[in-house]
Amino acid sequence: MSDAYDIAAFRSLIGPIKCEDNPVLVKQKSRDFYWYSPVLKRELEAVTADLVATPKDLNEVATVLSAAHALGIPVTPRGAGTGNYGQAMPLDGGVLLNLIEMNRILEIAPGRVVAEPGALLIDIDKAAAESGQELRMFPSTRATASIGGFVAGGSGGVGSITWGGLRDFGNVIRLNVMTMEAAPRTLRLTGADLHKAVHAYGTNGIITEVEMPLTAAYDWVDVIVGFESFEAAAAYALALGEQDGILKKLLTVVAAPAPERYFLRHRAMIPEGTSVVLATIAPQGLDALDAFTRPVRGAQILFVSSRAAKETLAGLPPNYELAWNHTTLRALRVDPQITYLQTRYPEDGGLAMIARIHERFRDEVIGHLELIRFNGRIGFAGLPMVRFTTEERLQAIMDEHEAMGAMVFNPHRYTLEEGGMKQTDATQLAFKRETDPQGLLNPGKMIAWLDPDFDFAAGRNFLFPGLEARAQAAQV
Amino acid sequence: MSDAYDIAAFRSLIGPIKCEDNPVLVKQKSRDFYWYSPVLKRELEAVTADLVATPKDLNEVATVLSAAHALGIPVTPRGAGTGNYGQAMPLDGGVLLNLIEMNRILEIAPGRVVAEPGALLIDIDKAAAESGQELRMFPSTRATASIGGFVAGGSGGVGSITWGGLRDFGNVIRLNVMTMEAAPRTLRLTGADLHKAVHAYGTNGIITEVEMPLTAAYDWVDVIVGFESFEAAAAYALALGEQDGILKKLLTVVAAPAPERYFLRHRAMIPEGTSVVLATIAPQGLDALDAFTRPVRGAQILFVSSRAAKETLAGLPPNYELAWNHTTLRALRVDPQITYLQTRYPEDGGLAMIARIHERFRDEVIGHLELIRFNGRIGFAGLPMVRFTTEERLQAIMDEHEAMGAMVFNPHRYTLEEGGMKQTDATQLAFKRETDPQGLLNPGKMIAWLDPDFDFAAGRNFLFPGLEARAQAAQV
Repeated sequence: MSDAYDIAAFRSLIGPIKCEDNPVLVKQKSRDFYWYSPVLKRELEAVTADLVATPKDLNEVATVLSAAHALGIPVTPRGAGTGNYGQAMPLDGGVLLNLIEMNRILEIAPGRVVAEPGALLIDIDKAAAESGQELRMFPSTRATASIGGFVAGGSGGVGSITWGGLRDFGNVIRLNVMTMEAAPRTLRLTGADLHKAVHAYGTNGIITEVEMPLTAAYDWVDVIVGFESFEAAAAYALALGEQDGILKKLLTVVAAPAPERYFLRHRAMIPEGTSVVLATIAPQGLDALDAFTRPVRGAQILFVSSRAAKETLAGLPPNYELAWNHTTLRALRVDPQITYLQTRYPEDGGLAMIARIHERFRDEVIGHLELIRFNGRIGFAGLPMVRFTTEERLQAIMDEHEAMGAMVFNPHRYTLEEGGMKQTDATQLAFKRETDPQGLLNPGKMIAWLDPDFDFAAGRNFLFPGLEARAQAAQV
Repeated sequence: MSDAYDIAAFRSLIGPIKCEDNPVLVKQKSRDFYWYSPVLKRELEAVTADLVATPKDLNEVATVLSAAHALGIPVTPRGAGTGNYGQAMPLDGGVLLNLIEMNRILEIAPGRVVAEPGALLIDIDKAAAESGQELRMFPSTRATASIGGFVAGGSGGVGSITWGGLRDFGNVIRLNVMTMEAAPRTLRLTGADLHKAVHAYGTNGIITEVEMPLTAAYDWVDVIVGFESFEAAAAYALALGEQDGILKKLLTVVAAPAPERYFLRHRAMIPEGTSVVLATIAPQGLDALDAFTRPVRGAQILFVSSRAAKETLAGLPPNYELAWNHTTLRALRVDPQITYLQTRYPEDGGLAMIARIHERFRDEVIGHLELIRFNGRIGFAGLPMVRFTTEERLQAIMDEHEAMGAMVFNPHRYTLEEGGMKQTDATQLAFKRETDPQGLLNPGKMIAWLDPDFDFAAGRNFLFPGLEARAQAAQV
């Protein structure tokens, strides 16, 4: 299929814009953390772009899009490549639009930051810290992830315990999105229009500028509280989550034996068989946390970063690098057969359901909960770790989760719909018709575009034809 | 009874500490906004101290307490006197301890302020604004109320939509409290110990220093949204309250005809028969609010302060001065027969209950809801306005509210228990034994101290014997 694209013509059209065509380096830039999933690892291993183009400003982005549009070459945008579902992997080859060098932070004001898409979250937070501010939320890959990639490929993370998710009104203020047309236009999305492009994997426009809300920055305190059971840890976390006066950045529950086995640098502080709650709170709430925790039966405060000795802190990752997808990452490093699910539990009766599911799967599924605010309430999301055996068994585990009442957002699928609400997102689809009439942006990720009649209820795995064809071509 | 106190001896013991004994001025300083309640107006009208003592530092407070202790003279602490239930009214006469000149702001740090009790909320916010911060919450009397009075006599207010109430862990960091003993001690309360003195009306110690959490300050935007029905306004407010990404400081619902009749300076913008939602949000959420509101049937944005003309804004009070107890105040100024209730509605089914109660009382009770966060959820508190006829009818209205499922916190009672949970607060009582063994602090406010066997379930109104005796003495 690569031969189908006239890359030489593309290069001559874009002139001096920075490009890379060394196949090893191009393949490197064509991946993300898709290998967390053994399914995606098998399906996407061969994926690679033909060329990486790295524009440095809006004009260069427009030039790349215009040239690719003229030649019918797919363009897949990429930030730092820290996604987990192949969000930025070019299933149909073509041009990898590497936005990481468009990384200027354009403006910081009270409650707001404006940045280019390649700006790293950590750099935004460093710049915002000068005015005592920081982003409301970030993924556990804060140190390496870009803001554009987070908005296009993420859904929330550290901070969602207070602010909800990226799709909630107010958690993105504005996106400028460039269209995939002969003469690319820049569209300015605010309010409800943001739903067109947030978490759309760049399938319907290239995010060229991001305006995000900021919140107050604090010297956040990491606390680890141990419990003899996962259920007790979950109950404590929910009750702590519902303490409105204790400002939190993170609230995570990890079942034994994951903490003692996978949190290598924390091992010394975690007694055998201990399930933990990882809490990150504003320092002015530490007395309150102590007072709240003291009467809780079985709760044992194992670690408080602001009280720890310098030697203890040296080399210790922050709580958020034990949480969200970093929990899975740490597990994978120790037990390579570990993979994971993404789940959500109902507001009412969630605790009991979590206990039933934990009991049902025992060691095969290690509990991992992330507490988030959702529609005004504190609730449980889950990223349980699964000891992988076969794809069939993995599917059976997910099916059983659903049968027991949990929602599953399948992280072993590369399409928007299958990883999400399992239905057409009419808003995103309509926007793609407007911004990418030829269907050249990040092909293979939006089922609704490729197969409007796809039956999500049938339980079939969508396979992007382009991906299959390229895989076959590669084998020939 | 006044003759029972040796005020002359007291004055000679306290030496040069500032005092006032002009009966007119003393009586002025012996009141608060108790007259919102026709019941308290009748009961407390005659209340006055014998002397106002105004210390300027800790040593002077200690001198006052020690002298009063030696002579058995009651001491009632007072901040700015903006309470509504006689919190700072000296039921048994004696010394009014006026703390308003102990008003230094001692320290402002990220997330914290330390202040003396007489510091005004508005002055704390002005000082905190230099570092982009402000208090998490304040009563609608922010412009005149003191921090010590708020902590001792309040329970929450503007900001509780985000942070919950003053009693929630984390919303007060520390209180220094001076005991009523021969040699007064200063106790330092943090964590769970704060429950001993928060909202105890100064019955069990004099608050001499307050440490409160701060949050990020913004140029808050006042928005007024109109609806054709109170129920529709309440439903919108709840849904907006549950929008986790829109940062709010205030969310209030006021039923027609109160807005058009009582919000005199806003009248021009309020169509006849309109119930309103008053929202105060961070400016970075305004687009989101617009987007959230646009599809809501019948919602009409009547006012947005950040978009209003200068002439419109001139003399216009902020939303928070239309809300909480200021709603009642504005109603009282127009319709002197108005009084009010304090209610709370259950998280589940609250909307339907509110609609039923609204339907039941029609014009006799004008709906007024304050949305607050409570145990992690957004819920409704109420300060409905009541067209007062008789005390019996007022009681019947409250009884019926309770019968229909609402909780009533009776604002027509001057005791802690009757206005609150209608039961002994064992923590506050035990602390009073420790800090005020002679029972000289703010006498008459804690039933559990005076009448341990009082039957709260019997529906009897507690009458402080000292108050009765003084009233009789005054008539003689």
